Amino acid sequence: MNAAELQSLLEQVACGQVDPGSAGRRVLEALRARPFEDLGFARVDHHRSVRQGFPEVVLGIGKTPAQIAAIAAEIVNRGSSLLVTRAGGAAFEAVRARVPEAAYYPEAEIIALRQRDVAPGKGTLVVAAAGTSDLRVAEEAARTAELMGNAVERVYDVGVAGLHRVLGERTRLAAARVIIVVAGMEGALPSVIAGLVDVPVIAVPTSVGYGASFSGIAALLGMLNSCASGVSVVNIDNGFGAASIASLINHL
Amino acid sequence: MNAAELQSLLEQVACGQVDPGSAGRRVLEALRARPFEDLGFARVDHHRSVRQGFPEVVLGIGKTPAQIAAIAAEIVNRGSSLLVTRAGGAAFEAVRARVPEAAYYPEAEIIALRQRDVAPGKGTLVVAAAGTSDLRVAEEAARTAELMGNAVERVYDVGVAGLHRVLGERTRLAAARVIIVVAGMEGALPSVIAGLVDVPVIAVPTSVGYGASFSGIAALLGMLNSCASGVSVVNIDNGFGAASIASLINHL
Amino acid sequence: MNAAELQSLLEQVACGQVDPGSAGRRVLEALRARPFEDLGFARVDHHRSVRQGFPEVVLGIGKTPAQIAAIAAEIVNRGSSLLVTRAGGAAFEAVRARVPEAAYYPEAEIIALRQRDVAPGKGTLVVAAAGTSDLRVAEEAARTAELMGNAVERVYDVGVAGLHRVLGERTRLAAARVIIVVAGMEGALPSVIAGLVDVPVIAVPTSVGYGASFSGIAALLGMLNSCASGVSVVNIDNGFGAASIASLINHL
Amino acid sequence: MNAAELQSLLEQVACGQVDPGSAGRRVLEALRARPFEDLGFARVDHHRSVRQGFPEVVLGIGKTPAQIAAIAAEIVNRGSSLLVTRAGGAAFEAVRARVPEAAYYPEAEIIALRQRDVAPGKGTLVVAAAGTSDLRVAEEAARTAELMGNAVERVYDVGVAGLHRVLGERTRLAAARVIIVVAGMEGALPSVIAGLVDVPVIAVPTSVGYGASFSGIAALLGMLNSCASGVSVVNIDNGFGAASIASLINHL
Amino acid sequence: MNAAELQSLLEQVACGQVDPGSAGRRVLEALRARPFEDLGFARVDHHRSVRQGFPEVVLGIGKTPAQIAAIAAEIVNRGSSLLVTRAGGAAFEAVRARVPEAAYYPEAEIIALRQRDVAPGKGTLVVAAAGTSDLRVAEEAARTAELMGNAVERVYDVGVAGLHRVLGERTRLAAARVIIVVAGMEGALPSVIAGLVDVPVIAVPTSVGYGASFSGIAALLGMLNSCASGVSVVNIDNGFGAASIASLINHL
Amino acid sequence: MNAAELQSLLEQVACGQVDPGSAGRRVLEALRARPFEDLGFARVDHHRSVRQGFPEVVLGIGKTPAQIAAIAAEIVNRGSSLLVTRAGGAAFEAVRARVPEAAYYPEAEIIALRQRDVAPGKGTLVVAAAGTSDLRVAEEAARTAELMGNAVERVYDVGVAGLHRVLGERTRLAAARVIIVVAGMEGALPSVIAGLVDVPVIAVPTSVGYGASFSGIAALLGMLNSCASGVSVVNIDNGFGAASIASLINHL
Amino acid sequence: MNAAELQSLLEQVACGQVDPGSAGRRVLEALRARPFEDLGFARVDHHRSVRQGFPEVVLGIGKTPAQIAAIAAEIVNRGSSLLVTRAGGAAFEAVRARVPEAAYYPEAEIIALRQRDVAPGKGTLVVAAAGTSDLRVAEEAARTAELMGNAVERVYDVGVAGLHRVLGERTRLAAARVIIVVAGMEGALPSVIAGLVDVPVIAVPTSVGYGASFSGIAALLGMLNSCASGVSVVNIDNGFGAASIASLINHL
Amino acid sequence: MNAAELQSLLEQVACGQVDPGSAGRRVLEALRARPFEDLGFARVDHHRSVRQGFPEVVLGIGKTPAQIAAIAAEIVNRGSSLLVTRAGGAAFEAVRARVPEAAYYPEAEIIALRQRDVAPGKGTLVVAAAGTSDLRVAEEAARTAELMGNAVERVYDVGVAGLHRVLGERTRLAAARVIIVVAGMEGALPSVIAGLVDVPVIAVPTSVGYGASFSGIAALLGMLNSCASGVSVVNIDNGFGAASIASLINHL
Repeated sequence: MNAAELQSLLEQVACGQVDPGSAGRRVLEALRARPFEDLGFARVDHHRSVRQGFPEVVLGIGKTPAQIAAIAAEIVNRGSSLLVTRAGGAAFEAVRARVPEAAYYPEAEIIALRQRDVAPGKGTLVVAAAGTSDLRVAEEAARTAELMGNAVERVYDVGVAGLHRVLGERTRLAAARVIIVVAGMEGALPSVIAGLVDVPVIAVPTSVGYGASFSGIAALLGMLNSCASGVSVVNIDNGFGAASIASLINHL
Repeated sequence: MNAAELQSLLEQVACGQVDPGSAGRRVLEALRARPFEDLGFARVDHHRSVRQGFPEVVLGIGKTPAQIAAIAAEIVNRGSSLLVTRAGGAAFEAVRARVPEAAYYPEAEIIALRQRDVAPGKGTLVVAAAGTSDLRVAEEAARTAELMGNAVERVYDVGVAGLHRVLGERTRLAAARVIIVVAGMEGALPSVIAGLVDVPVIAVPTSVGYGASFSGIAALLGMLNSCASGVSVVNIDNGFGAASIASLINHL
Repeated sequence: MNAAELQSLLEQVACGQVDPGSAGRRVLEALRARPFEDLGFARVDHHRSVRQGFPEVVLGIGKTPAQIAAIAAEIVNRGSSLLVTRAGGAAFEAVRARVPEAAYYPEAEIIALRQRDVAPGKGTLVVAAAGTSDLRVAEEAARTAELMGNAVERVYDVGVAGLHRVLGERTRLAAARVIIVVAGMEGALPSVIAGLVDVPVIAVPTSVGYGASFSGIAALLGMLNSCASGVSVVNIDNGFGAASIASLINHL
Repeated sequence: MNAAELQSLLEQVACGQVDPGSAGRRVLEALRARPFEDLGFARVDHHRSVRQGFPEVVLGIGKTPAQIAAIAAEIVNRGSSLLVTRAGGAAFEAVRARVPEAAYYPEAEIIALRQRDVAPGKGTLVVAAAGTSDLRVAEEAARTAELMGNAVERVYDVGVAGLHRVLGERTRLAAARVIIVVAGMEGALPSVIAGLVDVPVIAVPTSVGYGASFSGIAALLGMLNSCASGVSVVNIDNGFGAASIASLINHL
Repeated sequence: MNAAELQSLLEQVACGQVDPGSAGRRVLEALRARPFEDLGFARVDHHRSVRQGFPEVVLGIGKTPAQIAAIAAEIVNRGSSLLVTRAGGAAFEAVRARVPEAAYYPEAEIIALRQRDVAPGKGTLVVAAAGTSDLRVAEEAARTAELMGNAVERVYDVGVAGLHRVLGERTRLAAARVIIVVAGMEGALPSVIAGLVDVPVIAVPTSVGYGASFSGIAALLGMLNSCASGVSVVNIDNGFGAASIASLINHL
Repeated sequence: MNAAELQSLLEQVACGQVDPGSAGRRVLEALRARPFEDLGFARVDHHRSVRQGFPEVVLGIGKTPAQIAAIAAEIVNRGSSLLVTRAGGAAFEAVRARVPEAAYYPEAEIIALRQRDVAPGKGTLVVAAAGTSDLRVAEEAARTAELMGNAVERVYDVGVAGLHRVLGERTRLAAARVIIVVAGMEGALPSVIAGLVDVPVIAVPTSVGYGASFSGIAALLGMLNSCASGVSVVNIDNGFGAASIASLINHL
Repeated sequence: MNAAELQSLLEQVACGQVDPGSAGRRVLEALRARPFEDLGFARVDHHRSVRQGFPEVVLGIGKTPAQIAAIAAEIVNRGSSLLVTRAGGAAFEAVRARVPEAAYYPEAEIIALRQRDVAPGKGTLVVAAAGTSDLRVAEEAARTAELMGNAVERVYDVGVAGLHRVLGERTRLAAARVIIVVAGMEGALPSVIAGLVDVPVIAVPTSVGYGASFSGIAALLGMLNSCASGVSVVNIDNGFGAASIASLINHL
Repeated sequence: MNAAELQSLLEQVACGQVDPGSAGRRVLEALRARPFEDLGFARVDHHRSVRQGFPEVVLGIGKTPAQIAAIAAEIVNRGSSLLVTRAGGAAFEAVRARVPEAAYYPEAEIIALRQRDVAPGKGTLVVAAAGTSDLRVAEEAARTAELMGNAVERVYDVGVAGLHRVLGERTRLAAARVIIVVAGMEGALPSVIAGLVDVPVIAVPTSVGYGASFSGIAALLGMLNSCASGVSVVNIDNGFGAASIASLINHL
């Protein structure tokens, strides 16, 4: 029972076509059965979709190219924008066969197709990364943020062991409204950058490294223990998640 | 807006005191603001409360005696039954000062006061335990189950290293409708018992042990890897949780 | 020495063919050597087999198709029902060559052949799953439960981040006698569902996810720490185990 | 060499009192020795201080009351605002003896003294918490955010096992500009709330719980694996850190 | 039904006082109910008791002095030898009040009373320890072994960082029939000693150390990964367990 | 300087060909440079070699077939017996090309060639295993023990969930002088067996399992926490190590 | 603004072409924007480069041969020396196509090309390794150290279980100025060696082993807990890192 | 048999008092029994003692004041220098009663008494620390290094979140011959400092922090994964160990 149906029922009550007792029973019954779709909950999703643009995102990990292509076609057919993360070249071939207008960003392992406009972010969103091995995750973050309407600056190859490089980018960092910092191994870059700026820093640990990096645990712990205030953290390798929250902030 | 208020509104619409348009707006508004308390969600809790008897349980860990006593008084004053777990003697003293009729079960570290009848469980609920050090957790489970209306058999001191003792209790085990098995250290008892019976076994790892028991992790992992089917597991030392699910099963 | 042989011996004693002393020695000797097969222990297994239908289940992980086929043929030849979990297509090809009437459920990775009837479960068993990546485990649970005689409802694609979907399924969830909840990543779905119903919830963490999901550890810990009572947990990805215990409960 | 000294030197060069060669050497030498204090780096801190109000925060853990009091006096004497976290009553007694105007917030374990005005945050900052045991951390976050100039709404006692309570607070949650969610045990609340709103959610795992909560690890992992986008995470029990980043966001 | 009762029943059958059918039923019934105590299983325990001397050992950890004293009195009263491990001075005071003849070995934290003779071990049992901090565990092992009838040689203060000390004890080590090696921190001593001798080495990791010793995990892992063959391992700090197995070996 | 050279030197001193001072210097110099080979240390290895038969064992993991073949040829050429563990079929092909008389035991993944007799063990060595997936490790243990001169009984397929099978093998278990127990998943079998016998039990956890078995950690922890005395543990999957220590014990 | 530009500006001030105020502004502006490249920070890197010879090292893990070749060509083209670690044969083929003069050290998995001389180390650098499986890491360390100008002695195959081999190398160990010790499994070799010498020992745990070696964690923990003073540790398998620090020490 | 006794024996051989055969037997026997004390092994210790000054160091953790005092008195009585780490005030009181001339350094928790001169280190040893909570460990390192003869510079309160403070100390850092860096929480400081200098950096993680610092594990992992070459690591809180290796380096 949606708002229109409720209104129609009430009018039937007003004009005596339906008695109040049975009308009351029908309202309660309807609400108990499906109280959420009908009464505005969906609007939350809708609202978010309008601002972020992607009501549903497909995580490519653990799905076959055929499965990804089927889901992608379904999303596009119902008029939504498409965003697939962690998608290899074979996945893109499968998607392209069913959604020819989809684009592929191999350095980010992202397949995307915008079908609606998105509101632009208010400031610049910087994506900083420590090493070349972190670039896939950094590009996943940067490309996602761009698809969500943000102007993105990439500040790459700035590791803490060569401080002059970080410090040399101080101007670009200081101009950001929100910064995503991607780093593996020891994960110290977010602390250093958060000490140089006064905007929110979203830290993304990467699984880059070997031995006691434990596939990103060392970087994750380093970031959670950051001695700089203003740093919050997302899951290991979760460039998409960092971009989502940074975009939310940049649209505030 | 509860059901009575909705009915009254509909009657006002029927007799022309309220026009359908404003009535519709008032219904939608009310539902959006507080859609859950008013429309039957509470009945789930109520239903559960009727069968299990304790709508709210207080975990004594990390609360001062004074805090526990205050919460206990509030629960009892609104007519609910009281159940506090992990409560030491000092907590009971504080509670007794405000709820004189509350009872204390020191071996279970439970404070309780029944204020309503509970439906009886359908069969016998057995609580089995491996060693004397596991008894506090076993008693927490047994006493909770009794307070929830179950007939409880205690089968204690049956460790896997003295198989004849477990096997000697086969008759009592086989007569149960559901079995809670409490064990620390290696946590092998649930597998052995589940191999002897064909009723659900709820396994409770305990933090008893030292060294590589890692405060119950060894027992927890052993139980999760049980080679016997029919075993599910709750948190370390969570006698209360095991009793809750076993009581749910025993009331089916 | 089984019951018939014991009876025969006693009759020989009664008629004087065997003197009591040597009869006593023979009884004791027999019991010491093989006290279990002869005296009813097997009946436990038999009993369980009658109710659950699968006296022995084959875990396909770590076995070659040839090994699986050999074990399957042996089980079928002795008249038992067959259930192989974690079986890929190659395993099924090998099994089919020796057991042509075996069926394959690829979405559940299960090979099965019922050779005996099973008692039907008393109520509906719901299998709920959070994401599409959890479906293999959910199907392993659902298919196993069906093979064990239960009527199964599948409630899929209900993640906690889209609460309206879970809430929209409240009616189907509330109609269950026991619910299996399959979820990866953060593993929060069992708590949410257990808060909506008052039947036992068996939670199955899945290894779906990446980074700090640690192959299912995050979901496992989330479920063990569930703040909702009525939740017990099985091993990561153990859809079969969840179905076994849920079926036991549903047959009570 | 600060800006004034540089200017004075350049004027000496202009009027011939110092020759360009030795002036160049003096500039280079000064910059190499202490290039940071003199040339504007401190302004970053200053800027942050103006907006956030607390250039330096004292973590009370692992310090004696006497040490805390000495540091507090030093901070106040140089004109800065004071913020001490994780401070017990004894610490406050020691501080009050030296800084009589300091205030104590026992439920937050915070000692504070504002000596300068702070810019107000732009919207409402909500602090949501699952259970009563999480309140110390929630109050640390709420109080810190207030001291940093934010209007704070507290939405407490909203656990995922009683969904109707969370859903009943939907209106207040939806009105926030940024939300801090504090939860222990399974840590599922941030996902549920992030699914209801479209503003940034900062998740704070707490060490509340026992057994397999592993002093907050379960909640931390649950939050890092949140299936809702828009969630980032800080260290276990780090209410202060969450407030810092939320305040940064609320001042954007 | 024990052997005598079986014999009596058979004689009643032989003389016609009991008919074979009801005799058969009585035998089967008795065996099903308690098949283990009656038929020789206890002999295993008895046998072990004769050789090792302690049918039951009390672990003092997690028990109050009063509880320990009660258990100790019960064991002594039924004529068994007493062995309590991890017993502090207060526990001994409580025990002595009820079992005046009990002895206390404070350096081993053992309370003991021999009430029966034990068979002597066949050779010398060496207990080697790396550092002075390991001595409590080493003494628990040494004293337990002595109480079980073994001649024990203590070879203490032989760490791998001062190889000449280990090597200087080569003669005493080579004369052992079985060696217990107690070591904390890196746990390398068992490998070094097993390389010098050709008898079984039982390694006991201790929780001595700090930081990355992780309460004995480092030593435990070192010992499990020993590159010397002939080394097996018991739980962290489990001097008693090491002595039990070494004594079993020494009595072969 | 070996014993013969020392003797020769002393005789030269005795007959005046070498003066005592320079003889002393030569002795000291020689001892400082290579004090170990010359003076009997090698005898330890030799002694062990005589009893165990394999002075050097090759771990096939992480080596190419060519590397294994080269090492094998070298060992055989110097007259030693050959034992390669964790060797696949390709490794055996490579070895056979260079050592045609080497034998391969595929179920144990062992390549071996005895070139010397070994002393026979004194009693029977039992290898017990829980499941069919544990057999590779069990066979590694059994075959190694046989090659070291022990009479081995295999007691397979005795899991704790089907107790009657373990109990049915009580006679064979009780006849052993030492028992190796191989088990994965929960690792409870060693406790159960050690409760039935009074000989040393060497427990071998296996990496068999999935999910929370964590590649053998669950079984390892279960065994370290065994509540039965007489159990010591070796590394995960280390069948060879278990056989070495069991053989040492069986030769005492 | 580099030193020359500063000098030129000062001369313009001296001759009145630029007024002191605008000169001051230009200096400050330049310094704020890029204070590091211009003012000597690069000299640190340069200095290190002169002594160690490799301003930038490429970690081959996680890069394709084509990526490695591109980076290698770029490094060589700008005149720097080339060092690629963890490089397989395919990587070398790709590099050789673009940098024909590059050399490959397969046993160390290193690609290198020296384009400048390096200062020689002052003493001998010993690389000791326990087992043949550790040799790849040992060679990575040894070859890196040689390329950095050090005379390297390799002391291989010296495990702690065969002490006579370590002790037999005492003379060569004692002659070193700094020692790198590479060991997997239990990681005890560094302690033993540090007890024999009085020079710094850099310990490198390796991921060699299986089961409870946990890919090098056991060795890492063993080394961190070394009871010998003088031992510091680098990451698992980090032969390059050990060589870097040992070379720094050897050039002091 | 020491060198003098060997010489005397050889002279007896030369003069015919002892025949060569029995002399040879006596030499071999003596060497086999105690080959190490007699033949120069002690010299290694002696040598180290001369340079480092402390042949034996007492770790105060886990020892009573009385035990520490007894050990201290014994060390001082045999003429050695005394160094006790992790010693509280009560331990010092006990030591002073027996060794009145011992000094106490409370900020370092060190008791010491120099009884011999030590060789001075060649350069300056810097101890850098991030936060005030790290100072106990930093002082343990600094004081130990001073007692071992090194000139020590303390560079405290230089965290990575306030880079200008680290950079402002560049001159003092660059003047060091070896640097110890003490840091807790994220442990990023060693990387930053190693990027600024080209001398060896010994990193000491501290257990300072809370939550996901896991008592120093986060800092330890950060340091092991340092992206700067030249960093090696010691155990958590092991200021003494860092000082020992740094002193070894500084004496080269």
